[in-house]
Parts: sequence; C-alpha cells; structure tokens
Amino acid sequence: MSQKLNTPKGTRDFSSFELKKREYLLNILKNCFKAFNFQEIQTPSFENLTTLTGKYGDEEDNLMFKILSSGDKIKKADTEALKNNKLTKFSNSLSDKALRYDLTVPLSRFVSQNLNNLSFPFKRFQTQLVWRAERPQRGRYREFLQCDVDIIGESNFLNEVECIKIYDSVFKRLSMPIVNLRINNRQILDGISQLMNLDSVNEIAPILDKSDKIGYEGVIKKLTEKNISDSSINQLKFFLELKGSNQDKINSIRSKFTSNNISIDGVDLLEKIINTSQKFNLNNVNLTFDLSLARGLSYYTGTIIEVSSPDEFNIGSIGGGGRYDNLVQEKNPRLSGFGISFGFDRICLLLDELNLFPNELDSSKSFLFLNFGLDKIDKLPVFIDKLREKNITCEIYPSDNKIKKQMDYANQKGINYVVIIGEDEFKKSIFKIKDMLNGAESTFNLNDIVSEIEKLS
Amino acid sequence: MSQKLNTPKGTRDFSSFELKKREYLLNILKNCFKAFNFQEIQTPSFENLTTLTGKYGDEEDNLMFKILSSGDKIKKADTEALKNNKLTKFSNSLSDKALRYDLTVPLSRFVSQNLNNLSFPFKRFQTQLVWRAERPQRGRYREFLQCDVDIIGESNFLNEVECIKIYDSVFKRLSMPIVNLRINNRQILDGISQLMNLDSVNEIAPILDKSDKIGYEGVIKKLTEKNISDSSINQLKFFLELKGSNQDKINSIRSKFTSNNISIDGVDLLEKIINTSQKFNLNNVNLTFDLSLARGLSYYTGTIIEVSSPDEFNIGSIGGGGRYDNLVQEKNPRLSGFGISFGFDRICLLLDELNLFPNELDSSKSFLFLNFGLDKIDKLPVFIDKLREKNITCEIYPSDNKIKKQMDYANQKGINYVVIIGEDEFKKSIFKIKDMLNGAESTFNLNDIVSEIEKLS
Repeated sequence: MSQKLNTPKGTRDFSSFELKKREYLLNILKNCFKAFNFQEIQTPSFENLTTLTGKYGDEEDNLMFKILSSGDKIKKADTEALKNNKLTKFSNSLSDKALRYDLTVPLSRFVSQNLNNLSFPFKRFQTQLVWRAERPQRGRYREFLQCDVDIIGESNFLNEVECIKIYDSVFKRLSMPIVNLRINNRQILDGISQLMNLDSVNEIAPILDKSDKIGYEGVIKKLTEKNISDSSINQLKFFLELKGSNQDKINSIRSKFTSNNISIDGVDLLEKIINTSQKFNLNNVNLTFDLSLARGLSYYTGTIIEVSSPDEFNIGSIGGGGRYDNLVQEKNPRLSGFGISFGFDRICLLLDELNLFPNELDSSKSFLFLNFGLDKIDKLPVFIDKLREKNITCEIYPSDNKIKKQMDYANQKGINYVVIIGEDEFKKSIFKIKDMLNGAESTFNLNDIVSEIEKLS
Repeated sequence: MSQKLNTPKGTRDFSSFELKKREYLLNILKNCFKAFNFQEIQTPSFENLTTLTGKYGDEEDNLMFKILSSGDKIKKADTEALKNNKLTKFSNSLSDKALRYDLTVPLSRFVSQNLNNLSFPFKRFQTQLVWRAERPQRGRYREFLQCDVDIIGESNFLNEVECIKIYDSVFKRLSMPIVNLRINNRQILDGISQLMNLDSVNEIAPILDKSDKIGYEGVIKKLTEKNISDSSINQLKFFLELKGSNQDKINSIRSKFTSNNISIDGVDLLEKIINTSQKFNLNNVNLTFDLSLARGLSYYTGTIIEVSSPDEFNIGSIGGGGRYDNLVQEKNPRLSGFGISFGFDRICLLLDELNLFPNELDSSKSFLFLNFGLDKIDKLPVFIDKLREKNITCEIYPSDNKIKKQMDYANQKGINYVVIIGEDEFKKSIFKIKDMLNGAESTFNLNDIVSEIEKLS
C-alpha cells in the first residue's frame, strides 16, 4: 500500500463526530415521517438495468453507475458497437444492473412486484443511498443519502398538501429559517408548450429550470438561441411576466386556458392545494406558485414542487418532488403516485452553517480503566462487565503501557473519566476516579464501584 | 412496465415489518459496541479498484462487483485481452472502482489516509452493506449487512479477548443459546505446513476450512487427491487427531514446535487468550481451540476465530475475524489490526427460527381520522398537527371515499384507533374514537381531543 490511498471521486468517509450529526438529522426525519404514518421500506442498492432505464430521461440515464457483469458474461461484449462509437449499446452489453439513481423508480418496481400484498393508498418512506456519476461540487456528491416519502394509489390533492406539511414539520423540528417552497403543475406547462406550438414541454423545461440562476433575460436569450420563434417566445413571456399573489397568477392563467381542459384541471388542482395548505398551519415554508419551475425528471405528470435553500446559501435545491401517474403501472390511475424527497447532505450542510445542530449530540459518559499490568487485571473484567450490561461505555486500556501514554489516549479520545485501581488501591479495597475535564480525583470503596460509576454516567 | 419486475438475483426488499426486526438487532449490536467504547465510522459503498484487489485472495477478487467506467472512459476497453480470453484484464480496462467486498480493507484504507488525525489504538465499529457476486443460498445474499468491530494499532492479546467478549455480550443480549466460538492461529498453521514441507499454508487451508462439512476422512481424501505426500499427510494427522481440553491440545502442539519460534509464539498467544477469556466471564460462547480452522481471507496473519450457528441450524458461520498485521501499513507492527464481524442476516434468520424477536417490536399506537368530505376537513389539521408534534402517529384518510373503504384501510394497515368527527359530531362539539381491536366506541368533548388521544397513544 505504498501508493496514495483515497476515497473515489465524489464520495466521503464519515467520522464518528460527523455520524452523530447525521444521526440527529435522520432521527428527526424518520420520527416526522412516522408521525404522518408512513411506513419504512428498503430496496436493494442495485436494480436490473431494465427497471431503471428510460424512466428519468436520456441525460440522467447516462449518469447511472452500471455494474460490470461478472465472470464469463463479459464475453458478450458488443465490440462492434464500440467500434461504431455506440457507447451506450457497448456498455449495455457488459452490464445488466445499475446502482439506483433515485428511490422513486425502485419504489414503483417494489409496488408492481407486490401489487397483491399491499393495501392502498400505500404510504412509505425510505432513507437510503443513491448514486449519480455527476461532476461533484459543493453539497453535491456521487454517493448521497436520499430521504423520500411517497403515497401510491391515490390521486387526491390531499396527498400533495400532506407532503407540503411534512416539509414544514421537518424544517420546524430543525428550527430552520423559513424556506421557499415553489409549486407548479406539468399540465400547465404542457398547455403553455401547446400555446407555443412546441412538440413537448421538454423543449423548454431544461431552460426554464435554470431561471433562478440565469434570470428572465437569460431564459429568453437561451430560447432564441434554440431557434424558438418570436411568436412562441411571446406566448411564454405572458406567463413568465405574471406578478402578484398566487391567486392573482392562477386567475390570469385560467383566463388563458379557456379551451384546454387538461391545463384547466392543472390550474384547479393547484388552487386547491394552495388553499388547503393554508389550513394545515404552515410555519416554516413559504408556498409560491412559480411558473418557471419545470424539474428535470421525465416521469412527473402533475404537481411538481421544489424547496430552495435560503438565498444566502448557494447550494441549490434541498428537496423536491411531484406526481407521477404512469410510473407504477402504465395507464392505471388507481396507482398514481405522489412523493417528495429531502436532500439529506445539503440539509446537513445548512444546519452546520446555521449552527443548528444541538451542542451536545451525545450525552453519555465514557470510562477508561487504566492498565497496571496484564497479569494484574484479573479482577477488572467483572466490574466492567456489569457496567457494560447497563450500557455504560467503558474500556480497559489494552496494554500495560506507561500511565502517561494511557492518559494521553483518554484525552485524545475525549474519555470523561479514568478509573484507577493499582496494586495499592486493591490492597486497600478502594478505587479512584479522575475527572478528565477538571482533573479532580475522588476515592471510593471498591465494593461500590458499579453504583458509583453509574451515578457519574 | 409490462415485463415482470424483480429484484436482482441475491438481493431483497425489506418491508416495514422486517425492518423493525432488523432495527431491533442493529440496536443491540450498536449499543454493545458503544458500551465497549468503539466509535462508529462509515466509508463509501465503492472503493478504487487498486484499494481492494490483491488483499483477499484471487478467488475473492473475482467475486467483486466492479463498476463500469462512465462516459468516454469505456473507449479504453482492452479488446485484445478479450480476444485472448484474459477476462480479468479486460474487465479491469473497463472499471476503476468496485463495490466493497468487506469492511476491513476499506477500514485499512481509512486509517492509512487519516494516519495523522487518528489516535491509536483506534477502535471503530461499522455497520454497512457489502456485496459479493456469489451463488445465493439460504442465509447468503449478494447484498448483505456486515457489522464489524476492529482495533488498529495495538497487537496486544487483550484485544482478542475483548472481541471474544463482545460476541459473548451480543449473544447474551439476544438471549441466544450457547454458540461455539472456534479459535486458531495462522502462525501455528504455518508451522504445520512447514512440517509438511509445503510452500504455503494456502495449499491446505481451503480443504481444512471444509472439515466441519466433510469431516476428518474427507479432509484426508481431498489432500491425497491433491497429490500431497503420505508423509506430509501423516504430519498433519498428528494435529488433526489431537483430543482433549484446549490446554491438552496446546501442550501437545508445543512439544512438536520446539524449533519453530514463530509457531511457538502463536501457541503462547493462543494460551494467553484462552486463559484470559475465562476471566472475562463468558456466558454465551464456548471457546474451543480448533486446529482445522483456517479461514479463507488471505490477509490474516495471527489469531483467527469463527462463530458457528448452533448445530441444528445449517446456515454456516454467523461471525468471524482475525488479526491482520500487514494490511494497514506494510511492515509497521504499530498498526497491527484485530477485528471481528457479525453476519447480520444469518443472525436475523436464527432469531426468527428460535423465536427470539420480542413480540412487540413497536409499541406506539396509530390513529386514522376519517374523511367525511374534502370540504369539511378544515378543522382537523390543527388537531392533527398538535398530535404529530408530540410524535403521535396519525393521519387523515386522503379522500372522501365510502366510510367502509376507509375502515378497511385502517384494518389492513393495522391502525389502532379510528377518530370520527362528522358533521353531527362537529355540531355537538364532540368526537368519537373507535378501538379497532375490540370495536369499542367512546365519545369525548372536542376540546379535549389532543389530551384524550395522547392518553391512548
């Protein structure tokens, strides 16, 4: 191992200190999901390639980590495809599995596979890793924890409202400042793209999605560059220039869509969601109808939402979600799904920057028994055993190194108390405890060792 | 999604019911590791290929799941190697990362990388998934949870003793029957292979490892088939035929190794570990010196141990570990490591068969608010909100379906209480709670709703 060892690009190790912070956040998320009566499931880290591809969009498919087939299977390599520079075809001949890209497509596979054993609406949460071969940047990793809640089998708008309320509850529990939660509807975007004479909303969605970075002018510029006609762009301008309250925007749009039933349905739904959400006592989210919100993933069909990090922290979205009608079972509206996702790593980053992690993440105390000779420790294990049975953290220094070295170890590891039972103490049937914070030493009767240490723990 | 959807071979989904069992076991393991003052770390799911290969043995290297390079990198495919049937060379040209095969090699990478920031002895635990492209069978999956504790930077035998005690504590906390914990030492096996005039212990280790399945006769037969000479086999027979207590076996072996210092060191160490372990109050493990224990992984250099499932359950090893002197930093004895591993999935299987999971894994109660009309639920969110803030699990049925359907949902989901506030109840300012287990209905004042539900939760 002479070469330099590193974690792969875009991945991280976590120390015990960092894990305690992550555990704090994960517990808040899970407790909140449970309070809303979502039930946890877990799925495998990788799925069959056929399960994953074609659901997210072409660009996203290319960001999947594929797993190389093992053993003789790689003999099937399509070297013709390689020669012809058909790289996707070549890689697909070498792989039939990929690490999951999100938790939504695995969920839809889970539901399809267990259709007869589940009761609907099926409300599940899932907190597992996902992997994306993206360029790493601040708050964006190639391996990261995704925390999702989804409701499958019920298309009612109350699901949207409950999920918005989950964002609110989580951010309240975290004592976060108010976050912006933007909402839109793909059916409205479809209507706009029809008014623009486009084949599909996908022609403008990626550009719209950048509007918070490049601004209104930037969007118009990029659309012109894409050879979208001036008359089409003018149609879009009407929508992008809408001002006023959510209700004002809704009223203006409704007047535009008099003949497009699907888009009118989208507007009606949006109005219901926004109005009902107010009754759910939102404290920590500011719900805003934003016509420029498009969201990349191609499986969304109805409501889409996205939570931004506060303006002063430029780390992008910290959550988002939407309704997907055709993902679980094509054309079966009973299995419409709606779900949201928390960007765990980015929220961790925010809590750090905002100093919102509790000061004391772990209040349990730890004890080190000094080692005065490997031939003299015979009587210690009985005490230590009893303490550990009470889940009191204690250890015996593993060798009879110099006491100074043992004390250094205690200091470096942040051990709270050192327990001293040398030959002298054993003779007198006493023991000493040294408080490593203030250096104070106390002496006790050896018979009371378990109860005395328990008092301090 | 018309084709049949499945999890990939050797992987599993987990339902909420199964996850509660797994959480129970994981908590016992983690609490025990913490009581011994091990600190948690986590490492990425995949590592650079150079970090992983060459550490486990050739056979094991072939069982790694490699990750296909993304984008243009696969143009580097070594098609010459494919033509010449050099499959490993071909696959290595397509991949520079692999899913981790165990948690020990990632740990050694972690320690090497953070050498200057860690204090030694470094005691860590880690509970994460590992992946192996093995043929799946009962209790053996391609994705499974590994739970490890390791001590790095201290070669003292007390570490072995503490880890044996961890097995004992965990199995005691789980109320398991007594398990057999077999112990051996690679230095003794090296001495035996020298007496047999073999180049390396690896010539016999895989056969010895099968002795619990094929028996003494089977081992001799396989060695003969492998063209190992009769005189060599006779040397081995002396060791395999040893009977009596651990101490008897140790004495006999010592008499054989008069001139082999390294093997004598191994015997001395073994004796110390066995004798000291007795003082650590072993309740749930039966510690047996077993000369046929070899363990496959090639990085072990000293003590090796293995825990078998009770005889009546034929699911193989449920844990094991050993000392590795050269894995973290070659030739640096300060960083000798010792660690053990728990086979989480197999222990789960055992707890199930032995009926050792607690009856009530989750004691919290759940409440469903019936939905009497989406236009009539305005007043419910305030109550529900207050309850959820107290982490009481409650939900409102998401649509105004027939009450019968809503009650069916409550039954199927195992909801404990249904809360009834229809038009009539609102008028009278009351609410009703139906106990779904016995059907009993009680009526309360609507003002007391939060406190009444809290009493039941």
